[in-house]
Amino acid sequence: MNQIDTLSVNAIRILSADAIQKANSGHPGLPLGCAAAAYELWAHHMNHNPANPKWENRDRFILSGGHGSMLLYSLLHLFGYGNLSKEDLMNFRQLDSKTPGHPEYGHTVGVEATTGPLGAGMGMAVGMAMAEAHLESVFNKENYPVVDHYTYVLGGDGCMMEGISSEAFSLAGTLGLSKLIVLYDSNRISIEGSTDIAFRENVQERMQAFGFQTITVEDGNDIDAIGKAIEAAKADTEHPSFITIKTQIGFGCPAKQGKASAHGEPLGVENVEALRKNLNWPSEEPFFVPEEVYKNYSEIAEQKAEVEAAWNVMFAAYCEEYPEMEALWNQYHNAKAGEALKDDAGFWAKQEKPEASRAISGRLINYIKDVLPNLFGGSADLAPSNKTNMKDAGDFSKEDRAGRNLHFGVRELAMAAIGNGIMLHGGLRAYVSTFFVFSDYCKPMARLSALMGVPLTYVFTHDSIGVGEDGPTHEPIEQMAALRAMPNFHVFRPCDATETEAAWYSAVTSEHTPTALVLTRQNLEPMAGSSREALKGGYIIDDCEGTPELILIASGSEVALAVHAKETLAAEGQKVRVVSMPCMDLFEEQSEEYKESVLPREVRRRVAVEALGSFGWDKYTGLDGKIIAMESFGASAPAGLLFKKFGFTVEHVVEVAKSLK
Amino acid sequence: MNQIDTLSVNAIRILSADAIQKANSGHPGLPLGCAAAAYELWAHHMNHNPANPKWENRDRFILSGGHGSMLLYSLLHLFGYGNLSKEDLMNFRQLDSKTPGHPEYGHTVGVEATTGPLGAGMGMAVGMAMAEAHLESVFNKENYPVVDHYTYVLGGDGCMMEGISSEAFSLAGTLGLSKLIVLYDSNRISIEGSTDIAFRENVQERMQAFGFQTITVEDGNDIDAIGKAIEAAKADTEHPSFITIKTQIGFGCPAKQGKASAHGEPLGVENVEALRKNLNWPSEEPFFVPEEVYKNYSEIAEQKAEVEAAWNVMFAAYCEEYPEMEALWNQYHNAKAGEALKDDAGFWAKQEKPEASRAISGRLINYIKDVLPNLFGGSADLAPSNKTNMKDAGDFSKEDRAGRNLHFGVRELAMAAIGNGIMLHGGLRAYVSTFFVFSDYCKPMARLSALMGVPLTYVFTHDSIGVGEDGPTHEPIEQMAALRAMPNFHVFRPCDATETEAAWYSAVTSEHTPTALVLTRQNLEPMAGSSREALKGGYIIDDCEGTPELILIASGSEVALAVHAKETLAAEGQKVRVVSMPCMDLFEEQSEEYKESVLPREVRRRVAVEALGSFGWDKYTGLDGKIIAMESFGASAPAGLLFKKFGFTVEHVVEVAKSLK
Repeated sequence: MNQIDTLSVNAIRILSADAIQKANSGHPGLPLGCAAAAYELWAHHMNHNPANPKWENRDRFILSGGHGSMLLYSLLHLFGYGNLSKEDLMNFRQLDSKTPGHPEYGHTVGVEATTGPLGAGMGMAVGMAMAEAHLESVFNKENYPVVDHYTYVLGGDGCMMEGISSEAFSLAGTLGLSKLIVLYDSNRISIEGSTDIAFRENVQERMQAFGFQTITVEDGNDIDAIGKAIEAAKADTEHPSFITIKTQIGFGCPAKQGKASAHGEPLGVENVEALRKNLNWPSEEPFFVPEEVYKNYSEIAEQKAEVEAAWNVMFAAYCEEYPEMEALWNQYHNAKAGEALKDDAGFWAKQEKPEASRAISGRLINYIKDVLPNLFGGSADLAPSNKTNMKDAGDFSKEDRAGRNLHFGVRELAMAAIGNGIMLHGGLRAYVSTFFVFSDYCKPMARLSALMGVPLTYVFTHDSIGVGEDGPTHEPIEQMAALRAMPNFHVFRPCDATETEAAWYSAVTSEHTPTALVLTRQNLEPMAGSSREALKGGYIIDDCEGTPELILIASGSEVALAVHAKETLAAEGQKVRVVSMPCMDLFEEQSEEYKESVLPREVRRRVAVEALGSFGWDKYTGLDGKIIAMESFGASAPAGLLFKKFGFTVEHVVEVAKSLK
Repeated sequence: MNQIDTLSVNAIRILSADAIQKANSGHPGLPLGCAAAAYELWAHHMNHNPANPKWENRDRFILSGGHGSMLLYSLLHLFGYGNLSKEDLMNFRQLDSKTPGHPEYGHTVGVEATTGPLGAGMGMAVGMAMAEAHLESVFNKENYPVVDHYTYVLGGDGCMMEGISSEAFSLAGTLGLSKLIVLYDSNRISIEGSTDIAFRENVQERMQAFGFQTITVEDGNDIDAIGKAIEAAKADTEHPSFITIKTQIGFGCPAKQGKASAHGEPLGVENVEALRKNLNWPSEEPFFVPEEVYKNYSEIAEQKAEVEAAWNVMFAAYCEEYPEMEALWNQYHNAKAGEALKDDAGFWAKQEKPEASRAISGRLINYIKDVLPNLFGGSADLAPSNKTNMKDAGDFSKEDRAGRNLHFGVRELAMAAIGNGIMLHGGLRAYVSTFFVFSDYCKPMARLSALMGVPLTYVFTHDSIGVGEDGPTHEPIEQMAALRAMPNFHVFRPCDATETEAAWYSAVTSEHTPTALVLTRQNLEPMAGSSREALKGGYIIDDCEGTPELILIASGSEVALAVHAKETLAAEGQKVRVVSMPCMDLFEEQSEEYKESVLPREVRRRVAVEALGSFGWDKYTGLDGKIIAMESFGASAPAGLLFKKFGFTVEHVVEVAKSLK
């Protein structure tokens, strides 16, 4: 390695160690071990422009081992991304800093994805590579490879142990995503010690079995070897590549390198000193970086800018030659494109006959797909049940990149991560789907959707004990509360077509919040009072005159139950209001005045009805109301019998309502 | 295949097809495709005694593809398990039947585990094999292999696509669990069609990479080949075995075999007729089984009973020769052994100084390990942080089966499934551990703990924004609501040592409910008013005289905050009660009188404080109270600053309390 490369690599190490030491918190092991590989990649292979981090055709880089955030922050600082200053590094892990403990998308310029939960980055990288491959097929013309970039992801043993990486990589191999390049930081150390205690598998053979090309770099500090490996990865246009880089955790710090203790705690003041000496660092001053190092990074950044400049020239010529493609490009990249549905009467069609909300959703997906040509999604092997297939839109595969239907296989967790990756890539509007009960499997990645503010759409069908014969393993109970409890996540459980339309409209127009649609297997009758007020999350769907004596609140299939119960009660002279609450999250976002107008504080006789767990409904029923919901797991039987068994009948709602003092 | 074997195999097919047809619901594909393999295994290889399904040394069989439940029910019926009658099969998937849609542990005699969520059975099987290996090392003496059985698990492409199977099998290979034998029903069909669309990997090579012996049976109806494969699997005493059995989904039904449509819907009346003809079935009457078939199964069952009888003789001699081992055996197999801690002053030690509840828990684990020698558990690579290591108890590994500390690697989902499998096996008391935020990864299997009534203990540390610098990816918010909302699951968030002791006591004495302990990273001060009343879930920890004007309710680290806020308010003359609510689930199980005594309905000025999501607290605060909780994700900063930033200060609690009318 020449001197400037050596200094540039060590600058990453020194900045990382210093920042972690100053914070007295953080993970030095990865930045020290991977500094050389990351430098080689970012400096000599990746197409990126620090001056324009949002350039559409940049190569993507995800740090799947998000605990190594200082590696990324050091690179972003040295390359001059988003003016990430030395002071920002000094504020690592401090309140309101640009440098939080784990990289956060939307928080720090240049961070492509929020990582930290291990393996998540692997799944998101696969999603990005899928987006790239599809967009290539949509946009590229002869001599105009306007979409043509790689997706790199760096992770370690922990990422490889997590099941999500097997799920995602098995799919990546099946799809032959040759522009996906995985860098495996193989240091054989995990928090509890040597990976021998839990991880003796042959990782390379696993990856070959998935359909990856595998390449091994014996010395993680040998940037020539790393460079050759990356070139070999790019040269394989049939398979994704997996580069095993044998590293030493905490490299350069004599007392810590190769040890588990290097992973997740500061090296200690003396050890940082020893690191500096051992690396022959030219200064003892913390955070010192030689001017020549900044100069080197800045020169590289200028070269990188030229790559984008050349692309811009090509893209301008492309737009001139293919104005229709420019228009399409703009449509694909317009986050507000879904608003075209706002006054689209075809979309907001009235429901004529009883129909399951999953079937209604299936029709809507097929409507939306024509309005939004960048709609791209599918199911974890349940498309016929989830009704998520886009007709005549093809199947995305190794052989057909133009296909828009995604087949995730039975891999719910990777599916959600991939959905996030597709959305993060830009240019596409993704949805993913499975049974609602299996939202549990998606949850860790749904949380990342919410945390990143990525408006991915989740289509969850088979929404309650209405599942019927499949029984309790397939009947969601607590899933509703789990999702409602999550910040920045909208969960819709619509009662009919109008509300399903509102739910889909909300989903495809959302800019920073993911949406879950929770849909029935069984038929729903059209509700006379349903309306676009559903976009407020909760609204009066059936009212009495004057102030109600009783309010029935319900969602989804139980709204009809509430309306019918009201009929009975009204016939007996009671003043009853029915509130449909398809989305608690959106209702909570409304003004206090609006909420008071729907649920006046003074009316305390309230009954909530929902064929899912009761947890959380007290918010609206208070200490004086009652909740008709599930207090146990479900059972296996025809759905009608289950609704009866568990008290979801008009008679029972009436009875409970009357029992309120 | 001789005639009686052929008839016996086809009886499984006919019963399955008939039951599914009668229910007009179910999954015929697997039972038809796997009938021969299952028959060969159960008839000619597995040690089991239909007359005593709880024989401790039986071979275990888990149907990981739980949708194929009729395969299992047919076998249980034909072998005479638990008097599962033909009528029971006729009631397949009907209300309150013994034959629900998916196999349910504790519901149908002979079902070893609840399955349905794909891959779950694979994880549980690994847990059973680990339990067997450990118990071997504890109990076996020369000439007395009292623990010596295999664990078989049957699953298909869906199970293999799920990440949990990679997690579990990578660990199984590392541990060299040679008595684990996986039967892979390889039919290359999934719900959305050919597995080519999403699953082109080389499954055998993946399994070899994990450290499995792999064997392939080319024809799933060739019971001789299947038998030889099982023998070869048993012969390998170094590696677990993976037998790929090439099957045809829906075998025997001309219109359906080899097609996705055979998977999850009844064959149809005509196709069931065609199946009967095609298999040369001797009767057209639904559910007809020839007497000679029953006779064959019953003769096999008698032979199987002799195997147990021989074991019983050996076990009696063992007990005579080793009376201390008999006592130990009884202790291991006594679900109530944990009650020994009830009046154990060493266990219920008083807290002297500020200490994190994770550290307190670590001490308790090390106390319990001596009282309960069958305590067996560990962490998903976070033991040093979770404080779950049992000192001087060894590490369970391929080389040391006697070790009691488990190293799961970074595999939370498989960990929870394995924990379930260990508990289902019997003889051991398991715990599993990770950061609380990663309970999300465990959740699908935690749900199975709850559904099966398996009292697995989950140790979840780093319980709130108290995580601090690691930031929002590592700070739980909605996880508390997600677990509280789940039926039959106890979640404890203790405020000090006394409550942590209560939580652990509750966990290790629970017979049918799993327990999660949600523990702090940061120190907690001992609370003067804490007591074993915590076992009631919620109790008055600090009271005023007479009826309170205000009730403060809190859990965990916020109890101290509430107590200090009370001091301020009391000094100003307010009558304030503080309720500690370490476990909402247990509180809800108390009598109405008790609940009313703690939270009198008439007292409406209530404030709940918890540094997690607010969702669900309205149950106790009602429409007139307030909640001080998280309404967003957390942030990266020192924990003290985060508590302040998000309003968890005495001043803020006082201010909110005063704002209540």
